[in-house]
This record gives sequence, C-alpha cells and structure tokens, in this order.
Amino acid sequence: MLELTKDFLDALRLQIEAGRDEELANKVGELHPKDVADIFDALRREEILYLYRLLGPDFKSEVIAELEEDVREGLLSSLSSKEIAEDVIEGLDSDDAADALADLPEAKVEEAMRMVDDVESASEVLELLSYDEGTAGAMMAVELVKVEEDWTVARAIREIRAQASDVENIYTIYMVDDQGRLNGRLSLKSLLLNASSARSKLKDLKDENDLVTVEPHENEEVVVKLMERYDLVALPVIDNDGVLIGRITIDDAVDVLIEDAERDYQLASGISEGVEGKDSIWALTRARLPWLLIGLGGGVGGAYVIGAFDIESNPELALFIPLIAAMGGNVGVQSSAIVVQSLASANVNMGNVVSRLLKELRVGLVNGLICSAIIFSTSLLLNFGWMLSTTVSASLLCVIVFAALFGAFVPLMLEKRNIDPALATGPFITTANDIMGLIIYFSIGSLVATLMT
Amino acid sequence: MLELTKDFLDALRLQIEAGRDEELANKVGELHPKDVADIFDALRREEILYLYRLLGPDFKSEVIAELEEDVREGLLSSLSSKEIAEDVIEGLDSDDAADALADLPEAKVEEAMRMVDDVESASEVLELLSYDEGTAGAMMAVELVKVEEDWTVARAIREIRAQASDVENIYTIYMVDDQGRLNGRLSLKSLLLNASSARSKLKDLKDENDLVTVEPHENEEVVVKLMERYDLVALPVIDNDGVLIGRITIDDAVDVLIEDAERDYQLASGISEGVEGKDSIWALTRARLPWLLIGLGGGVGGAYVIGAFDIESNPELALFIPLIAAMGGNVGVQSSAIVVQSLASANVNMGNVVSRLLKELRVGLVNGLICSAIIFSTSLLLNFGWMLSTTVSASLLCVIVFAALFGAFVPLMLEKRNIDPALATGPFITTANDIMGLIIYFSIGSLVATLMT
Repeated sequence: MLELTKDFLDALRLQIEAGRDEELANKVGELHPKDVADIFDALRREEILYLYRLLGPDFKSEVIAELEEDVREGLLSSLSSKEIAEDVIEGLDSDDAADALADLPEAKVEEAMRMVDDVESASEVLELLSYDEGTAGAMMAVELVKVEEDWTVARAIREIRAQASDVENIYTIYMVDDQGRLNGRLSLKSLLLNASSARSKLKDLKDENDLVTVEPHENEEVVVKLMERYDLVALPVIDNDGVLIGRITIDDAVDVLIEDAERDYQLASGISEGVEGKDSIWALTRARLPWLLIGLGGGVGGAYVIGAFDIESNPELALFIPLIAAMGGNVGVQSSAIVVQSLASANVNMGNVVSRLLKELRVGLVNGLICSAIIFSTSLLLNFGWMLSTTVSASLLCVIVFAALFGAFVPLMLEKRNIDPALATGPFITTANDIMGLIIYFSIGSLVATLMT
Repeated sequence: MLELTKDFLDALRLQIEAGRDEELANKVGELHPKDVADIFDALRREEILYLYRLLGPDFKSEVIAELEEDVREGLLSSLSSKEIAEDVIEGLDSDDAADALADLPEAKVEEAMRMVDDVESASEVLELLSYDEGTAGAMMAVELVKVEEDWTVARAIREIRAQASDVENIYTIYMVDDQGRLNGRLSLKSLLLNASSARSKLKDLKDENDLVTVEPHENEEVVVKLMERYDLVALPVIDNDGVLIGRITIDDAVDVLIEDAERDYQLASGISEGVEGKDSIWALTRARLPWLLIGLGGGVGGAYVIGAFDIESNPELALFIPLIAAMGGNVGVQSSAIVVQSLASANVNMGNVVSRLLKELRVGLVNGLICSAIIFSTSLLLNFGWMLSTTVSASLLCVIVFAALFGAFVPLMLEKRNIDPALATGPFITTANDIMGLIIYFSIGSLVATLMT
C-alpha cells in the first residue's frame, strides 16, 4: 500500500510542473490503480488531467473505476466526449461506466454515446442508467459468463473463452435455458476438473442447490443482506420472467455496506449528510446545522418548561437540571440504538412491538432503580438535603423509564411506517427526552415541595 | 430466504415433541444451512440437540459453521467428543473449526483432538488456535490450492483435482516456489482457457501483478481495509520467510466489517458491550450502565458548578441550562464523530493535528455564529430580556466553539497514543462538554449581571 507522504506529492507536483512526462508515466504506471486514485484525490484539477493523459489506455479506465465520486466527476467534466466514449463507456465494466456517467450532464452523456464504436456496450450502459440509484439494477454489471445446459464441456470452454475477455472475475458460470432463464450454476472448479472429458454434457455438472437471486428493482440493502447471509461473491439478477440480466459482485456490496454503516454512524452522531473530514467548511457546517437547530428549539422549549414552574421559590432545583436532561437523552439514545440495530440485522421476525417495549420497560426499571439509588445516597451525602435528594432520585427513575420506552417506541413506529428507523437515533429522541425529563423533574419538584412544607 | 414465523416454529416444536424424526429431517434437510442456524437460534437447547442429531453428517458441519456464537457454544458443550471430532474438526474448514473450538474448555478440545482420525486436520486446527483473536492468523483458513511454477498445465490440473476436494471455493490458485514461498497467482480462468495445451508451463500463465499479502500477526482491521481497498475475494497470508501459510476469504472479512460497524455504532450510542435486542435484561442493563454512571457523575459535577454561582440572585439563568448543556454535547459528538470516521477510513495521511483543529475551529465559529444569532433574536422576541439574551447567545458561541475543538481533539489524541478513538465518541466528550458549558454559561452570566447592574 502506497504511503502518500507530503514529500511524494511535492515531488510529483514538481515533475508535473516541469513536464517530465516519461518519468511521471513510469512512476505512476507501476502503481495499483487504487493508489493512483488516492494520488488524484490529493491533486488539483489541472494536475489530475495532466497526469491522467499520461496513463496507458486500459490503466486510465482502471483508475477511473477507483476514483472518489467528486474527483471522478471533476475529471470527467474536463474530458472530451471521445475520451469518455473510449475510457469510460468502452473501457469500464458496465456497472462502473453507468456509475461514472450518472453524475454527468445528460447532453454530455448523449454526445459521448454517439462516439462509441461498440454499440452493444453503449446500449448496455444506457440500460443500467435507467435503474434507480440504490437498487439491485443500479449495482449490477451485465458482464457475466453463461452457458446452456445441453452444451458439451468442449463447447462451453470455447464459449467461455469468447465471453471471458469481457469479464474480469468470472467467479461463477451461470447456466440458462434456451430462453435465457437462469436454472443453475456451473463452478469453474468442476468445469476445470472435467475439462478432459470434452464431450460430456454440462447438465451433469449443474449445481441447482441454493440458487439465491434478486430482481433489479430490489433495494441495495436487501442485496447486501443476501450476499452477507449466504456468503456469496456474486449474486445473479433476474427479471420477471426469470431471465438472467446481470450479476452483482461482492466488492460493490462491500462498498454499500461501508456507506450504510458510515451513514448510520453519522445519523446517530447528529450529522445529516454524508460528509468527510476533508470536505469544505460550508459542507461540514451544513451537515451539522439541522441537529443544532433542533437542539436550539428544544432548548427554548426547555426554557419555557422551567419558566412555567416557580423556579424563584425553589432555585435549588436548578442544580440538577443538567443531570436530568443528560440522563434522559443518554437513555433514549441507548435504547433507540439497540432497537435500530436489531431492526437492521433482523433476519427473523423480531417479535411484536409490545413484547419489545415490555423488555425495554424492565431494562429501564433496573437501570433506573440503580441510578436512582446512587443519586439519592450521593445527594444526601453531599448535603443537598432531603427535599432535593428525593425529588432528583424519584424524577430520575421516571425519566429513565420514560426515555427507555420512548427511545424504543419511536424507531419501532418508524419501521412500521416504512421510514428508516436510523433517523430516530439522533436529534428527535434526545430533544423530546430533554423536555419530557424537565417536565417530570419540575412536576415532582413542585409536588415534593408542597408535601414537605 | 426463510421467513421464521411463529407458526413455523410452533409446528416444528410439536414435531420435535412428538418425535416425528423423518418429517423433521426432510423439512429441515432441504433448507439452507444458514436458515437452519436461524431456527436453532429460536429453539431451546434440548430441541436444538434433538434436531441437530437428525441432520446428515456434512449438513451438520455446514449448520455449525453458520451458528451464532452463543448457540454454537451451547450446542457444542452438549455434543460428545466423538461428535466434535467428526462434525467440527474434520467436518469444518480449518478456520471455522478453530473459531468453534476457541470457546470450548481446553480439556474438551484435547479429548476431541484425540478422537480425530485425520491427524493433519487436527494439527492444522491446533495451529490456527494458537493465533490471537483479532489477527489475520485467526481469520485465515489453511485450505487453499497451490501450484509450482515449473509444473505443466496437465500436472497442475491433476494436483488441483487432488487439493480441491478440501477447498470449497477456490477463487485463486497460488503459485509458490520449491520452498513454498508465494510468488504469483494463477487464475482459474487462464488455467481453464489453456487446459487444452496440457504441456505448457504454468510459469507462462503466472500473474505477478499487485500481489497483496498479509502476515499472520496483522490486525484484522488491516485485513478488512486491504480487501476492501483492492477489491479482493481472497487474501494470501505469508510468514516471515514469504511462505504461503493460509488465505482469508471475503466472507470472513465482511463479518469483521459488520461487527466493527456495529461496535462503533454502539460506542457512539453509549453502549459498552456487543449486545443485541434479544439478550437478557441483565446483559442489556450492564451494557448501558457505564455510560449512565458517567452521566450521573457529570450531573453531580454540574450541580456543583451551578451551586458555586449565585443562582438564587439570578434564578432566570436556570432557564437556559438545558439549552447550553444540550448544545455542548451535540456539537462535541458531531465533531468527534467526523474525526473518528476520518481516522477509520484514512488511507492517506490526514494532515497534522493543528490544521485539523483549525478547520474545526472555523466550522465551530460558523455554526456558533449562526446559532448564537438565532437564539439572541428568538430570546429577545420571546421577552427573555437583554441580560439573559446576551448571556445565552454569548455563552452559546463560546460553548459551540469549545465543544467543536474538544470533540476533535480527544479522538486525535487517543489515536496518537494508539487507543481506539471510537471510545471518545460517547460518554466522555458529552459529559466534559456539559460541565465546561455550564462553567462558561455561569461565568458569562455573572459578568453580564455585574456589567448591567
């Protein structure tokens, strides 16, 4: 793995400035395309274009396949239609080509399409562009190796030789009937081990077990779950009639898995868009602002709640406001996170909502009783007095139980309504629990004050 | 994918109770092993054992490979040593066998080892058991297909036929020298396409490009990053001398990826152990308690801070305590999450700490100014008065900037000291920011009160 040091980049930049084309081509040409993509990520747009044009034709395509989306978009918008036709539409696998073109202006794509010599790859890419982002159709590549079950081994090897030039990793050979409908698999291993018996029929080598498939409109998360669940490196995509139209490879599923995990992590941390540390100040600000605004609204609501009670006659109640607010928020985030994860990984029916909530109730009660006992004795020991200690410990128990239930309830409801439950983890739960916690605290505080005086 | 309904399970239980062995064997035998593993997950221990013993010998092993850790441990502890020898040590791939045995008592493992007929698989599994959990060595399987470069194609096919019976998915054929040192790859595709030229040497088909390898002591996160980065389905493991000792397959890397993502998500949500919704009340309570205790400590600290200021003479300051505490916590969580993600995905040098903090400073300033302006005007409009509005808006700006810097600083420092920065996301940042926020708020409040009177 290339260590992208500042020295390396500085040297490279000097070579670009000095126009040392041959040195540059040699230096970069021996790297892994992924490493070159990382270098591009650190260069300015003119430097990227300069370096790109020094690469060999196949290598260009390999690098494009590895580029980050924003870098790729920048590069492609500087390329001529001819270059896009050759390096992208003809040079890339259909799925990568469709991904790369998805962000370009339509006019530019059409112009490039007209420059493509190989009409078939152009139409394949156009076909893939028609699937919605986030579906199996948008993830699949049309390049694959397929054979018919009544072929002989010898014919299969001939056909595979012809088909394989397009397919980088074969993984699995698909078996179809004369209508193109998928009906089995043929492992490279069994074909190889039977290569000498050239006249035997493929039918005898067919593996029909556990044939997992997906349809093109299916959500990409379903694809990832299937591939992970059944340890697949390639998943065939079939249309309504069972006709094999493409396949999804594990590398693309892994990319989706990582993106989803990052997005859920960001949602749980109150960040609303897919941002990275290297993004602009404005992008980072915008991604964070929504939660902060909800937090502001919650804070103003909290001020109203406190104002509605007679804080001036019991000003010592102010002391434990932060504790009550923080604990409500914490417990709510915890219980919503557990529910969101259960929902995301559930391959089994997770039981009905009521039993789930009853469990939360019990966990909340245990946690609440422990915390409540601790805060009661601590508060007495620290001389906060009976009234305040009673108020804070009783409120804490109520707040923890309420927050646990509420935190579990919201994502369960969202899931029922087919809304992504991960949305519930961040701002909404915390803010609602803050306000509810304050209402509970001051209600109990007023009650205790009345009873004790 | 099997839908595990309550009805299905109830029917199955009745069949187990009634001892309808043949029906059960047929029903379960036609499922995917992963689906059977899910069924086991929902059954009681005696039911699992009963059903397990009805399965065919190979199918037993396949199901064991798919079981959840706790279910597998329960089942294995009920099996005889002979069964463990056959179904686990001989029946599973070496990596899966080592995983399954890792949780059993040593005496039981030794007893089972003595029952194994195939001495080689026993010693391979023992070898794998010697690697620390979380390393490449513990992830790898020793089953793989390797050839020597001066063999002919015909000999290679013969040898592969012999080796392949042990290896479920070949993916890649490794080329080694006469010392067993890895020096290239041979794709099944090129071997197949050259199967007819039986006398040509493998050397001519060798692919030496981009040979990514890993050593057995390397951390599993490095393995995952390499496989994801270079789109690998199998990663060879070599020892100090370059000798090929095993390979890691993408399905295991995907499992690690998912576990890591779940763990980071839980840490960010204040849950301290790998728990699932279906775990016991006590496990769920214990996993959540640590953060709650830190929160309690923070709350008591907050009470001291508020008590140290003269809240009784400015009781209206209490109104915005929740806002200040919540905003400090939110901003801190956001900025730490961005830093943690950058550190986790960084394949490039992420720049020095100072420039990173300067960026956070600027993002914090922009967010702080926006929020501060909003709260100032809102607070005036809502008649909270000049003193309170000035105090809360000035404090909010300071709190947001401080929390952004602190949230970024802590994970950066942890990373420098080789501590997992994900630990910083939850309790510590939030609690520290709560207390610091209160100190800032009441200091500014006192100052404003003094200036205005």
